[in-house]
Amino acid sequence: MNLLSEKGFPEKLKKMSFDELEALCEEIREILISTVSKNGGHLASNLGVVELTVALHRVFSSPGDQIIFDVGHQAYTHKLLTGRYGKFQTLRREGGISGFPKPSESCHDVFATGHSSTSVSAACGFASAKNIKGEGGKVIAVIGDGAFTGGMVYEGLNNAGDYKNLIIALNDNEMSISKNVGGIARYLASTRTKRSYLQLKSYTKSFLSNIPFLGEKLIKRISSGASLLKEALYHSTLFEDLGFVYFGPVDGHDIKKCCEVFEAAKNFKNGPVFVHVTTVKGKGFVFAEQNPGAFHGVTKIDPDSPSAELPSEDSYSAAFGKKLTSLAESDSKICAVTAAMKYATGLNFFHDRFPKRFFDVGIAEEHAVTFSAGLAKAGLVPVFAVYSTFLQRAYDQIIHDAAVNKAHVVLAIDRAGLVGDDGETHQGLFDAAFLSAIPRVTVFSPFSYAELEDALERAVLGCKYIAAVRYPRGAEAKITNRAFIKNFTGGYSTDYNYYSAGANSLVCTYGREFAEVANAFRGQYDILKLCRISPVPEDCLKIALKYDRIYFYEEGIKKGGIGEHFIAALSEAGYAGEFRHIAVDFGLVGHASVKSSLKKLRLDAGSIFEDIGVPVNAK
Amino acid sequence: MNLLSEKGFPEKLKKMSFDELEALCEEIREILISTVSKNGGHLASNLGVVELTVALHRVFSSPGDQIIFDVGHQAYTHKLLTGRYGKFQTLRREGGISGFPKPSESCHDVFATGHSSTSVSAACGFASAKNIKGEGGKVIAVIGDGAFTGGMVYEGLNNAGDYKNLIIALNDNEMSISKNVGGIARYLASTRTKRSYLQLKSYTKSFLSNIPFLGEKLIKRISSGASLLKEALYHSTLFEDLGFVYFGPVDGHDIKKCCEVFEAAKNFKNGPVFVHVTTVKGKGFVFAEQNPGAFHGVTKIDPDSPSAELPSEDSYSAAFGKKLTSLAESDSKICAVTAAMKYATGLNFFHDRFPKRFFDVGIAEEHAVTFSAGLAKAGLVPVFAVYSTFLQRAYDQIIHDAAVNKAHVVLAIDRAGLVGDDGETHQGLFDAAFLSAIPRVTVFSPFSYAELEDALERAVLGCKYIAAVRYPRGAEAKITNRAFIKNFTGGYSTDYNYYSAGANSLVCTYGREFAEVANAFRGQYDILKLCRISPVPEDCLKIALKYDRIYFYEEGIKKGGIGEHFIAALSEAGYAGEFRHIAVDFGLVGHASVKSSLKKLRLDAGSIFEDIGVPVNAK
Repeated sequence: MNLLSEKGFPEKLKKMSFDELEALCEEIREILISTVSKNGGHLASNLGVVELTVALHRVFSSPGDQIIFDVGHQAYTHKLLTGRYGKFQTLRREGGISGFPKPSESCHDVFATGHSSTSVSAACGFASAKNIKGEGGKVIAVIGDGAFTGGMVYEGLNNAGDYKNLIIALNDNEMSISKNVGGIARYLASTRTKRSYLQLKSYTKSFLSNIPFLGEKLIKRISSGASLLKEALYHSTLFEDLGFVYFGPVDGHDIKKCCEVFEAAKNFKNGPVFVHVTTVKGKGFVFAEQNPGAFHGVTKIDPDSPSAELPSEDSYSAAFGKKLTSLAESDSKICAVTAAMKYATGLNFFHDRFPKRFFDVGIAEEHAVTFSAGLAKAGLVPVFAVYSTFLQRAYDQIIHDAAVNKAHVVLAIDRAGLVGDDGETHQGLFDAAFLSAIPRVTVFSPFSYAELEDALERAVLGCKYIAAVRYPRGAEAKITNRAFIKNFTGGYSTDYNYYSAGANSLVCTYGREFAEVANAFRGQYDILKLCRISPVPEDCLKIALKYDRIYFYEEGIKKGGIGEHFIAALSEAGYAGEFRHIAVDFGLVGHASVKSSLKKLRLDAGSIFEDIGVPVNAK
Repeated sequence: MNLLSEKGFPEKLKKMSFDELEALCEEIREILISTVSKNGGHLASNLGVVELTVALHRVFSSPGDQIIFDVGHQAYTHKLLTGRYGKFQTLRREGGISGFPKPSESCHDVFATGHSSTSVSAACGFASAKNIKGEGGKVIAVIGDGAFTGGMVYEGLNNAGDYKNLIIALNDNEMSISKNVGGIARYLASTRTKRSYLQLKSYTKSFLSNIPFLGEKLIKRISSGASLLKEALYHSTLFEDLGFVYFGPVDGHDIKKCCEVFEAAKNFKNGPVFVHVTTVKGKGFVFAEQNPGAFHGVTKIDPDSPSAELPSEDSYSAAFGKKLTSLAESDSKICAVTAAMKYATGLNFFHDRFPKRFFDVGIAEEHAVTFSAGLAKAGLVPVFAVYSTFLQRAYDQIIHDAAVNKAHVVLAIDRAGLVGDDGETHQGLFDAAFLSAIPRVTVFSPFSYAELEDALERAVLGCKYIAAVRYPRGAEAKITNRAFIKNFTGGYSTDYNYYSAGANSLVCTYGREFAEVANAFRGQYDILKLCRISPVPEDCLKIALKYDRIYFYEEGIKKGGIGEHFIAALSEAGYAGEFRHIAVDFGLVGHASVKSSLKKLRLDAGSIFEDIGVPVNAK
């Protein structure tokens, strides 16, 4: 059995029998499990949408019909069916195929995704373009119920009612990344339990119309009541209220039923269609089915006896989570907020200890920041733990709600800097730049766990306004260079470390990048490591002014980065020496290991030594 | 009659008769009209909520009960009732009271607002804090129906279901700024037309239970049908689906009914309450009632024969709107997108000419950008016209949806720079900084209408990826300094203008600030005016390198601003001269005229001359 290796997908799907399609789905599941076991990636979410995706590609004709995957981590089956079966073993590997839809990979990936809740808006754009250009075909947004906690979906839905060529396929697995939260989740759950909703509605309709007594009574006794009743009966879902025709719910693992419902949606001409498909996250892989949250994003697993990715003890996330919990022991004002990332951010420790002061708001970073600002203005001390890349969603809220309100909101920014295999949609390269431009924000970028703990304590207890503590993904960076420890001496402050070897040139850096810098040298340069990166400590400027030559190494975007603030302040203070700023000159770094990306960006110890290891004076 | 001048508000309201309250409302309306006539401000929105606000302050006890005004431009009555009657004639004047809620002004302004759709999230924070601290009282978010096009509201609503001390007061005037758009608006309209919704529901309930035949039939013939029917009947609003108890709709100009419904909401213990109040925007002022859109934000009016603020012919907005329309005549791919700002952005010209290529998506900047990215990826050329301050909402979408997708989205950024009387929540001081850090973005900051037209044409026809054209509020800046025209000569490119008077120091600037710079000098400095501010043209760096001393004047945030990019690039190119960057060092500039703000920031011609008019060498 090797159906996928045959040519002609996805068109070929249209001619296959349902038995063949089922066999194909089984084959796809095997490939998903074996590949993700080796390469890492999103397992449970992809296992959940195998039949849904096969059905979509059977019923519709991509790329004439355009399929947009929300978040995009569930597009593996789509990739297997659209020309990337042969390369699938390169998934998430450098130079290989991305773990997310990527237009440069295939004409079938019409829109790159990575963050949540964007698909409806993008699909509206494609649907609108079809109308303007007079093109046929449909646009399908495939979106999980978890993405419905993100407000952007509603902005899209609010504008979607007019697109008759638009289909929203809700992949309802009752999960976002872990368990879904809030009113929308409860609402979807109530819809889901009405098993034969569609049938029942038509049934009720004919039932009611067959009771003349009822009709008469209604007309007679409530003048506007009939329409009210009717409306209440036939417009009882959120989505119908928004102008959609609602089909479902349909069993998302029944390939035949999936094909039927999409066929019906395809043939429906009078409005946008909302197809509600219920799926089981991790379907077909017993470990993942039982604990899909743990298998959301995995690095590598042994498919026979997998241990899921739990927050590693040896990680910045765990260090953060434990320290915050310990701070909260002696301060009842401290609260923790997460946007659907309880485990990944290490907040599980806090949640277990202080459930009443813990808030998982769903995938809703905007709300999270403004909610935190509200908590702060009411006298509490909220700590919002969030990935750097997702904090971008709340840029305006940080300015407009937290900074303008002078709110003491603490941002614990995980995955700051390069993130590795998830690639360009997930890099945390902008936060240092955008936060440092906002008034009243203090930004710490600690190097070690100990510094993280110290910085967090200062952010929580010692700052008056917005305070951010940012740290990389994974484990503490290590200094392996013995010469560094031997040759350098220098001052220390909680805001910075200054290592002098008596050189006449200085290298400045901060965060994880310090390990690369420290590992590169044997005393050729003095080193200044910032911990408080914004505002840059005055003392650091004074130190730097003494040097003839300064290199600023930064694992973050160059334009607007800390290095630019640094040289601008130095220049205004009269610095006339040489300067070089080695940072990420282009913020959209593709998927590759962190190590490999650092090397390509000339930010790893080896490149640093190659580039400046022999100081100019010594040359 | 001068009720408001008496002491004891807002507590006093509790003891007043409904006749007195009506007289008070009339008095408030008079003050609103007379003050806004003189000082400018938001007229129609404030006239619409007089009774609603009076009723809130009568029923609840601020600041123990906390009232948060969404957008905040409708809080004038609240200000009059909470200690700011005496200062009300200073509304929006420098040193006077702000046009928006401001915690530094009063303990009754618990949360600063200005942008749309933040109130529910903030209110959740306050409600949560009450729970944690064991405090009584309610938190009330007052929010217009227009704000329901903003996705952030749904993130808030999704998390609001658990707060029994939360009340959402929907001020439903069927408008956002002009006419409300989309599915939510239609939905609210349908709810609104069910005049006696609440009564009717109880009526229907008792009616149905009085028909045994129906009950039997239901039980007999549809096993799960009864609960379905019931649910359909009693859960037919969006808000109930989200866990709210729904009260309304109530006539928002009937002070007695408003008090009754808020009293009921106050006494309801078993969940958050959603109070639907219908109001007439501009109520009590015939010109505003007839055309509330035109009277949304007015500068100054003659109350006897007012001419509303229509897009001025002599404005960057009009120049933009007309030029875009003209470009669209010969290119059918050009589309225009606005987030509820058709008139204010000058897109009315485009809309009138090309209605099918025009999209008003509501107050939904996130959607607007991702929708535009979709249009672009499908082959069209979208131009999203938006205020600088509101574009902040779409920061992540610009990176993640437009930049990652390599989409050619054009951003027409109005109100870039200082905006004047609206103050800190509305300043456009961040866009140059944040856009210039994002890969593949070209940013133009034209000085004149002619430059705006040229830059727009280049952005639309000559750029491949994201291209932004940013320009200030109001009319073209003027160079009045004859010496400038007489003494300066220099090169010209569409990217920059170089004016030389043979000086040995250089002043760089861009946009409106150029007029201030040009008006300051008589040949003391050479002047470099950027039009393409990012990436900074290589030639400009070459020009600047020749000078011993450079001043960079920037009407925008200093940290991460263009001036920092400029000096960083110069330093890397070996510049060793003096440098000063005069920009907005603190991005939250309070309300004052643009002229006065420029002066305080040392950015006006007078300050520039005072500060550097006599070059160092000549001293």
